[in-house]
Amino acid sequence: MKRRIAFSLAFVLFVLPLTAFAQKTQRVAFIIHGGAGVISRGSLSPEQETAYRRKLEEALLAGYKVLQEGKTSLDAVEIAIRMLEDSPLFNAGKGAVFTADGKNELDASIMDGKTLKAGAVAGLRRIKNPILLARKVMENSPHVMMTGDGAEKFAQTQGFAFVPPSYFWTKPRWDALQQIIREEAAKAKGKKIGEFRSPASQNERYGTVGAVALDKNGDLAAGTSTGGMTYKKFGRVGDAPIIGAGTYADNRTCGISATGWGEFFIRIGVARDISALVEYKGVPIQQAVDEVIQKKLQNLGGDGGVIALDKNGNIGISFNSEGMYRAYIDENGKPVVKIYKD
Amino acid sequence: MKRRIAFSLAFVLFVLPLTAFAQKTQRVAFIIHGGAGVISRGSLSPEQETAYRRKLEEALLAGYKVLQEGKTSLDAVEIAIRMLEDSPLFNAGKGAVFTADGKNELDASIMDGKTLKAGAVAGLRRIKNPILLARKVMENSPHVMMTGDGAEKFAQTQGFAFVPPSYFWTKPRWDALQQIIREEAAKAKGKKIGEFRSPASQNERYGTVGAVALDKNGDLAAGTSTGGMTYKKFGRVGDAPIIGAGTYADNRTCGISATGWGEFFIRIGVARDISALVEYKGVPIQQAVDEVIQKKLQNLGGDGGVIALDKNGNIGISFNSEGMYRAYIDENGKPVVKIYKD
Repeated sequence: MKRRIAFSLAFVLFVLPLTAFAQKTQRVAFIIHGGAGVISRGSLSPEQETAYRRKLEEALLAGYKVLQEGKTSLDAVEIAIRMLEDSPLFNAGKGAVFTADGKNELDASIMDGKTLKAGAVAGLRRIKNPILLARKVMENSPHVMMTGDGAEKFAQTQGFAFVPPSYFWTKPRWDALQQIIREEAAKAKGKKIGEFRSPASQNERYGTVGAVALDKNGDLAAGTSTGGMTYKKFGRVGDAPIIGAGTYADNRTCGISATGWGEFFIRIGVARDISALVEYKGVPIQQAVDEVIQKKLQNLGGDGGVIALDKNGNIGISFNSEGMYRAYIDENGKPVVKIYKD
Repeated sequence: MKRRIAFSLAFVLFVLPLTAFAQKTQRVAFIIHGGAGVISRGSLSPEQETAYRRKLEEALLAGYKVLQEGKTSLDAVEIAIRMLEDSPLFNAGKGAVFTADGKNELDASIMDGKTLKAGAVAGLRRIKNPILLARKVMENSPHVMMTGDGAEKFAQTQGFAFVPPSYFWTKPRWDALQQIIREEAAKAKGKKIGEFRSPASQNERYGTVGAVALDKNGDLAAGTSTGGMTYKKFGRVGDAPIIGAGTYADNRTCGISATGWGEFFIRIGVARDISALVEYKGVPIQQAVDEVIQKKLQNLGGDGGVIALDKNGNIGISFNSEGMYRAYIDENGKPVVKIYKD
């Protein structure tokens, strides 16, 4: 009897506090990306590189702060993506590239790993922050995906302020479009109507921003936002707004945001496949992302990369392009910003 | 030496012909669906039931014929879906339901299990057979998904004849929309602007057609086509044109076409998940479809069903709705048509 009391006492004194402590310190984790592509050393000026690194760190720390304050992984994903959308540096929001007819069409998606609820928007022309609208689709509608004018009508019901399409005009993106238009005109002879151009440089295909977060409740969330592809035609939709291709989150497995040649990411179902690998084969997250990017994507001829967090906050990063703008909080709580393969 | 000659002779006489025979008789397989939903016995008149059964059998046999003639699984999927699209009985093509503003917006997708190439279209208003355009996107463009006016511009470059939007007007679908509009008007008091109606009957959410085929070369293909949801708003896109949600095909695993409450199918990534279960856990196709439909979809609160074929032509069918229009060729080469749970 005495022994049982002693045991109970020991339990109350030592084990319970440990449990409470463990709950309090559920590790938060946060990772973001600003696109993958041909970013070799020397292709960025020192000033450009500094600008990218600063903006990535700023968005990373903003998201990390809300996680530390106990807010949700959805909040962290939203705030970081919104900051990247507001920067002209990245192909999303303000910095969106132009379509063939000189317009900007923006796509985004977000997913809540706790409920498997998701929201996605495609073909927006007057919404400053597509990620905010994707979240409203998820939270305030029974739908997952809305497109074009219809999605903007929904935005009106949600009290969104519209920006004029000219908000998205930036000189570098406009120059990039004009360059392609000149090249196309020069090549026009002998081309069939409706023929497709191959991207002049790989960089045109990429450019996406994304984030994955794990909050104090152990809930995962992931989001992705993009301005699409320069000289895009025919209402083309890439992987960013496709749940399971560019974005996926499931508390039981992991959260993923992708960036790359969208068509390949849709065909493989990259984000969904990584989650399935973790679910069905129990492989560590780094192995899962490498399996899909370095093997499946590589073998199919696609390129790009992903960022991921598993349910314990372990980080997975994989890309087969030359570089990927990325930033994360390391095990010591310090921000790490990387661009090249290093 | 004599022994070696005898062995070679035996090989040429017996083993080689067997191999050739095995190649010749690669089993073809074909399965189609015409939507899932509340189809209880007695809800269809005998005439209606006969009409559905006849059209399903007709489309099934048309696809099976081209497979027997040695044509591809893509051809079989296309021909069967085209026939279902041309019938007013199903919510796809001619029989498409109306959006809230009295229009028809059609979606479709197709995937080639050999190459993992895929094509998808959403929000079409003047294309008689969306499945044909989805195939052109796959075969004649570098893209996977095109939407709205842009997709129709691409159709022009492919020589598609356009139908006037009035082609899709059918009395039953129009009456269904008017019924909902009356209900909504009656309920309008006290509703917030932009609020969503819950589907008046489950049948409104469903209605999709699809097909999965395995051809003599051992190549799988899958396709899906839909008219969406009655009283649809905001450019909503369901699972039918989402590769990995409504449609997936991979020669190494299986082909799948889904029908049901699209939002749930996107959130789970139903088609991609079934393929992953076969790939990573090696479970039989029937077990894989049951796992995803009867457990994951059911637990999340969604409903609908899938048809599937594995790489050996084994059939998987699973639905948690009351019925699903479906037809397949059985092991003896005979057509089987079913509607209810039986």
